[in-house]
Amino acid sequence: MAELITVDDPADPRLHDYTGLTDVELRRRREPAEGLFIAEGEKVIRRAGESGYAMRSMLLSAKWIDVMRDVIDRATAPVYVVDPALAEQVTGYHVHRGALASMQRTPLPAAADVLRAAHRVVVMESVNDHTNIGAIFRSAAALGMDAVLLSPDCADPLYRRSVKVSMGAVFSVPYARVDTWPGGLETVREAGFELLALTPGERARPLDEVAPHRMDRVALMLGAEGAGLSGRALAAADELVRIPMSHGVDSLNVGAAAAVAFYAVATGRPRE
Amino acid sequence: MAELITVDDPADPRLHDYTGLTDVELRRRREPAEGLFIAEGEKVIRRAGESGYAMRSMLLSAKWIDVMRDVIDRATAPVYVVDPALAEQVTGYHVHRGALASMQRTPLPAAADVLRAAHRVVVMESVNDHTNIGAIFRSAAALGMDAVLLSPDCADPLYRRSVKVSMGAVFSVPYARVDTWPGGLETVREAGFELLALTPGERARPLDEVAPHRMDRVALMLGAEGAGLSGRALAAADELVRIPMSHGVDSLNVGAAAAVAFYAVATGRPRE
Ligand SMILES: C[S@@+](CC[C@H](N)C(=O)[O-])C[C@H]1O[C@@H](n2cnc3c(N)ncnc32)[C@H](O)[C@@H]1O
Ligand SMILES: C[S@@+](CC[C@H](N)C(=O)[O-])C[C@H]1O[C@@H](n2cnc3c(N)ncnc32)[C@H](O)[C@@H]1O
Repeated sequence: MAELITVDDPADPRLHDYTGLTDVELRRRREPAEGLFIAEGEKVIRRAGESGYAMRSMLLSAKWIDVMRDVIDRATAPVYVVDPALAEQVTGYHVHRGALASMQRTPLPAAADVLRAAHRVVVMESVNDHTNIGAIFRSAAALGMDAVLLSPDCADPLYRRSVKVSMGAVFSVPYARVDTWPGGLETVREAGFELLALTPGERARPLDEVAPHRMDRVALMLGAEGAGLSGRALAAADELVRIPMSHGVDSLNVGAAAAVAFYAVATGRPRE
Repeated sequence: MAELITVDDPADPRLHDYTGLTDVELRRRREPAEGLFIAEGEKVIRRAGESGYAMRSMLLSAKWIDVMRDVIDRATAPVYVVDPALAEQVTGYHVHRGALASMQRTPLPAAADVLRAAHRVVVMESVNDHTNIGAIFRSAAALGMDAVLLSPDCADPLYRRSVKVSMGAVFSVPYARVDTWPGGLETVREAGFELLALTPGERARPLDEVAPHRMDRVALMLGAEGAGLSGRALAAADELVRIPMSHGVDSLNVGAAAAVAFYAVATGRPRE
């Protein structure tokens, strides 16, 4: 059972993991460097634990002790009990979800390892918005994608907002970073995947022509909101695929495009 | 050509349309009551104008005058030129998109009117999140839906964030409010629409069985993030339809579910 420790000094170094949570730039640098991520709220904390992440510490106000009793009982990490006002001072916001946990990151697997058992994978290039990353993980899990690969400049799936928007799917869908980009996409092809680049461009083939004839292993590549996929990423693909657009609209939001494409390849698979 | 008026008093009543823009609750009440909405940034202001909305006034800092020159030249409403610091004081945030315009709302059409020429419509129940509303309008326009109907408690499509996330699609997709809910859904059925309720529930039929056989007029009903569609809304539907879920995930985000369903009915239509 974890120790319950009352802390009343906002400068207490034991609260360091939780300082400045609203400063996205700061946390973006600090969290991977310090090997931690923040789980917020009862559900997310539980899911992170169930997914095998070790807890470094927990921070909560007294009234949440009962709700989190079983988690506290199982934990070996220290549990800091603080005033809501002090929590706000440390984190920079009013923690209405009651409890925060600092979790230990684990080393990411290599791309080749997450690909081994996968049939349908998502590949993202430069998707650096935490909401989009989280939304795509949620849809990926829900629509049966097996793994996610990220270019080096994609946002962090374990950042607080990504985790929340994903409803915890970032804990359950295996993911890896591709170290060299787009060169590392060779790993995907060597593993036997057909690499489809999702792009609204005119020269791409309509998704409903392509999806029903998919082979055993397919990788769907998605680009960022403003720029879309880079020329080099498009050149590395086996095929360019588009979701036909109406009413003169340029493109879908990347999260919407992802959901449509995941559905199409899930539905289009041969059923034995 | 519009008059350029320099304002240096944040309490100037002519800036009233722009006060407290970050106070969502306040703006949610005030904007419909006062018959205005706020367009933010060059693109959105242009689109609102092109879609026929009349401008009440514009607020910008001096360095944006050149960028907006043609809009200013065509406008008849007053243009208030202010210091960026004053803009921040009035609105409550740093207006990095440079220009704001207060636009005049127009009366919403009746549901029966937007349905008349439509073949595929979206119906939302209690979707009260501005990001989700905006995202669904963007996907609706992009994927060829003809109109949107909203239950009385849906969020405002013309709220600043909805407009922004929709990329202006709230200006181009016709929409109406259903006055009585769910009773008003009778209007939809009377207009000859098959009413499909999107729900992850087990007793619903899989979308890929239903979508390819759709008839001429189809209405897709979507629910809110937490609760989903109400029992009464489900009871009013002709059929319950689900997108099959994997990995034990409960549901998709409503925006993702919408995109998938719009795509499926667009693709599944008979092609003459
Ligand atoms: C907002 S879009 C980027 C738009 C960018 N102007 C372009 O031309 O690619 C973000 C990503 O979503 C996906 N996407 C959006 N709309 C799409 C469509 N109609 N067909 C295929 N992919 C699409 C693509 O992967 C794209 O890189
Ligand atoms: C997050 S879901 C609501 C979940 C809620 N627990 C329920 O059971 O409906 C929000 C809306 O998205 C749509 N939706 C989400 N996942 C879906 C799925 N797998 N099949 C059909 N509709 C879905 C439905 O219209 C739903 O009301």
